[in-house]
Amino acid sequence: MRLRRVAGAQEKLDAHPHILVPNPAEYKGKWKELFGNDKPLHIEIGMGKGGFIQGMAQQNPDVNYIGIELFESVMVRALEKFIEEPMDNVLLLKENAILLPEYFEAGEIDRIYLNFSDPWPKLRHAKRRLTHAAFLKLYERVLAEDGNICFKTDNRSLFEFSLVSLNEYGMVFDEVCLNLHADEPEDNVRTEYETTWSAKGYPIYRIECHFKRD
Amino acid sequence: MRLRRVAGAQEKLDAHPHILVPNPAEYKGKWKELFGNDKPLHIEIGMGKGGFIQGMAQQNPDVNYIGIELFESVMVRALEKFIEEPMDNVLLLKENAILLPEYFEAGEIDRIYLNFSDPWPKLRHAKRRLTHAAFLKLYERVLAEDGNICFKTDNRSLFEFSLVSLNEYGMVFDEVCLNLHADEPEDNVRTEYETTWSAKGYPIYRIECHFKRD
Repeated sequence: MRLRRVAGAQEKLDAHPHILVPNPAEYKGKWKELFGNDKPLHIEIGMGKGGFIQGMAQQNPDVNYIGIELFESVMVRALEKFIEEPMDNVLLLKENAILLPEYFEAGEIDRIYLNFSDPWPKLRHAKRRLTHAAFLKLYERVLAEDGNICFKTDNRSLFEFSLVSLNEYGMVFDEVCLNLHADEPEDNVRTEYETTWSAKGYPIYRIECHFKRD
Repeated sequence: MRLRRVAGAQEKLDAHPHILVPNPAEYKGKWKELFGNDKPLHIEIGMGKGGFIQGMAQQNPDVNYIGIELFESVMVRALEKFIEEPMDNVLLLKENAILLPEYFEAGEIDRIYLNFSDPWPKLRHAKRRLTHAAFLKLYERVLAEDGNICFKTDNRSLFEFSLVSLNEYGMVFDEVCLNLHADEPEDNVRTEYETTWSAKGYPIYRIECHFKRD
């Protein structure tokens, strides 16, 4: 994704700590307290401009969502959405996914969404792909026993890599779809990317899977 | 596949026992003897008209191939190919894959090819799909420790089912390709089906996988 600098971005990000949590490590194990209820917690890693999480939060008021995004310029766009239309079941973190276990207690998350993640096409960058074993290990730690991962992408190479990686890690495939829009589920919330790339004729791939627990 | 009756088919099938082996159970554990050498043994289940196995056998003279096909009308077409151009590294069996362990000793096969297998789209027929656990169990028995399975298809639903089924069985995915012809490997031998469906714009899916051994 090409990232543009947004004037006054940092000031904006700092000005809404009730939406964009500036000190997530303080809430480790206490997210339910912060949300003020016992609803399940779903997170999106690499949220981008927030369209997906906004749609999901509207569709599922009984779920709490946390959107995680590292890049300032897109985080500002996401934040703007929730400033305009406040939602009490959404929080945002401008953090790196590699630090997930710093912010979440073991088993604290019920579902992880990965949408149109950066494919990192070069082999030497494979470890940065969000479906690499290095990340799966983190997800396994923070996900609840019956938690799962939902991943969708238009990037064929990334999805091929991911099928091999998730399988190799020992994850259980609950559902695989190789053309999500051919028979699009009614409750599918499209991301900005998804609409763009699907319109260009690219199939959207999707997998839902979970960790095998002893 | 629509099957036509071929006049005089049975007579033709019976007339070439040196190509189409009429009594395969007799060679269980003895295929190397029948071929007269120690080359690895690769089989194709659901060979159809034999174009794939013919191409593979020409490309790989150091491998022995057995093509298995249940239906008379297509078996006749395959047989005709090898009557016209005899190959000493190909044999054919007109048998049902469900009886594999009757014809092959444990570990006797080095690779199994499944190409454009019948998708059996109805859920109540799922057990007939060649990537169903019921068949995987048979493959595991007859495949050598370092043996593998190569499966390709244009049928999206069958491939989605297969990814879940192979994963659930505990198979290891060595390689997954979701558009084989986008960057077609030089040594890819196309089946008759493959050429037809690819020309219509359907992606060809492929997976190479093996059983986890203790």
